[in-house]
Amino acid sequence: MSSTPSKPARPPLAAYATAHAVAFAPLMFQAARAARNLGVLEALEPGGRTSREVEVTTGLSPYATELLLDACDALGLVERSEAGFRQTDAGWLIVHDQMTRVNMDFANDVCWKGALHLEDALRSGTPSGLHELVDAPAVATIYEGLARLPPEAKASWFRFDHFYSDRVFPLARTHVLRHRPRSLLDVGGNTGRWALEIGEDVPVTILDHPGQLDVALDNARRAGLEGRVSGVPLDLLDHARPFPTGFDAVWMSQFLCCFAPEDIRALLRRAKAALGPEGRLHITETFWDRQPNAVARFCIHATSLYFACMANGRSRMYHSAELREWIKSAGFAVETDVPLGLSHTLYTCRVAA
Amino acid sequence: MSSTPSKPARPPLAAYATAHAVAFAPLMFQAARAARNLGVLEALEPGGRTSREVEVTTGLSPYATELLLDACDALGLVERSEAGFRQTDAGWLIVHDQMTRVNMDFANDVCWKGALHLEDALRSGTPSGLHELVDAPAVATIYEGLARLPPEAKASWFRFDHFYSDRVFPLARTHVLRHRPRSLLDVGGNTGRWALEIGEDVPVTILDHPGQLDVALDNARRAGLEGRVSGVPLDLLDHARPFPTGFDAVWMSQFLCCFAPEDIRALLRRAKAALGPEGRLHITETFWDRQPNAVARFCIHATSLYFACMANGRSRMYHSAELREWIKSAGFAVETDVPLGLSHTLYTCRVAA
Repeated sequence: MSSTPSKPARPPLAAYATAHAVAFAPLMFQAARAARNLGVLEALEPGGRTSREVEVTTGLSPYATELLLDACDALGLVERSEAGFRQTDAGWLIVHDQMTRVNMDFANDVCWKGALHLEDALRSGTPSGLHELVDAPAVATIYEGLARLPPEAKASWFRFDHFYSDRVFPLARTHVLRHRPRSLLDVGGNTGRWALEIGEDVPVTILDHPGQLDVALDNARRAGLEGRVSGVPLDLLDHARPFPTGFDAVWMSQFLCCFAPEDIRALLRRAKAALGPEGRLHITETFWDRQPNAVARFCIHATSLYFACMANGRSRMYHSAELREWIKSAGFAVETDVPLGLSHTLYTCRVAA
Repeated sequence: MSSTPSKPARPPLAAYATAHAVAFAPLMFQAARAARNLGVLEALEPGGRTSREVEVTTGLSPYATELLLDACDALGLVERSEAGFRQTDAGWLIVHDQMTRVNMDFANDVCWKGALHLEDALRSGTPSGLHELVDAPAVATIYEGLARLPPEAKASWFRFDHFYSDRVFPLARTHVLRHRPRSLLDVGGNTGRWALEIGEDVPVTILDHPGQLDVALDNARRAGLEGRVSGVPLDLLDHARPFPTGFDAVWMSQFLCCFAPEDIRALLRRAKAALGPEGRLHITETFWDRQPNAVARFCIHATSLYFACMANGRSRMYHSAELREWIKSAGFAVETDVPLGLSHTLYTCRVAA
């Protein structure tokens, strides 16, 4: 493998930094996580602290304290100061930024064990890492297995999912209600949050896998909304089974990224059949080409890897042009195309003339 | 945890980049590894390639190819070009640089599963991750368990160990032979490589754990050197047991980093007792304060994390001043202090007057 170097000049130090940051990433990730969880990063606030002071605050041994401070120094999460060590901005984000925490817990609790199988997942087109979390051969995607995930993985999965949808729901709600739908089909309703939050007495029918649907309907009952929220259990991948029909609106939020292109096309056709003649299809997604900066794009591409090794082995965060093409080929026309928050896009579609 | 943000201003984008590079490191590490192993990075040489061309070369699906190219783009291992994608210098290093390969395989094959237990290892002072590789409660350190590691982990462990020692041995050999030792005690002889390579008809006695000593003596026999190389099986941590005595030289190569400070002090005292009056102790180590640049320091600190979660839970790559202090307190004086290659230091010590 290393016998035919085609690079004539010695790569610059920055390239070595990138390569070794990748090579040792597993150990360094766990060091950052331990430094967060054990209070090492927090002990440095608000100013600099000696490693002895960090020991006292955290109750850790000198060995553990120094190891974590040195690793965090190497990672750029702390830096040496006259007083000893102080937090960098990145170190502050690891502790306080909710998005960073949610992503890090998701990567650890949901993805760590299964990511080891990414190579196999990409060869086979199946989520080879999923069996690390759900030991049931019949469970082919994480969606069927959500209710059975180990508690920590389940909590981190839903925190990740909700972190992003919570920011989008209030923004999307206005757009959907503008058209005054008298009925709404929520495809892949998850925990039923959208159905609960849409309000305005719009009757909502949730479609989802039986296990997940039970959770959503339970939540609706607990909110006293069993009159307005109903559900239909359905294998979303069984494209021979039509959706219920006659809706004013179909809602697919962070949903289509969970499917391979051929399934997306079929789901869009089923959605079309579910709509009345004046109905609208609302789709929110995070497209990798529509991110405000390289950091957001990095997170989106990393999330695609989760789809490959853990979720279903076949889907990802798509390019906006891909989904536009599939929307068109399913017989829809995009009526409005609006950004929601920093990272999401809402396509509102009508049946093409 | 996230309720008391003390940062008034919004951190700069670079801080978000660092934080999220850490947060998603597990998924991105596995993507880089898959891109290396499945030939995606190599398929881009020598110039740019379209993702379709990469599919043809690798035999991967469009989905797998695009996912890996996008992840590598986010990591800085490839970049978009007019022709599609091309390797960056960092991407070239991931494929061709032997040190990067060795580190990456070590992180994956030896450390991945156990690193998940780093936090527990640092709390307990034990290598909590080791049980992921060796399912034997009696094995307290990786050194006792080396012979029983799963084949892939064992191969990557020795490749890592030898990669660094191979570069140091020829350089150190000259220094050691300059003093014309008539006998040499090789403490922690590992696979016996040093004993074999020292040459010059210097009789070598290897000290090591029984399992590892068998391997070393086997190698010596196979090299036809059973007359010159002998061994004494020994629990190196049983400080009540003296080393054999009367040697002209004691050799400790990449050895003391495998022990906690109190054990290092005891091992140095045992080494002192093993030497004749004119004897010399030769120590090679990689000190984190004596690295040529931040990348080398990063690798050294990452390796310390391996000691914590996999090897013994108590040792690390030390600061040169720490070891100097322990050498002095054991009754030695450092006679010469020379750099070996880029990252190592050789201390040659004499019994203090």
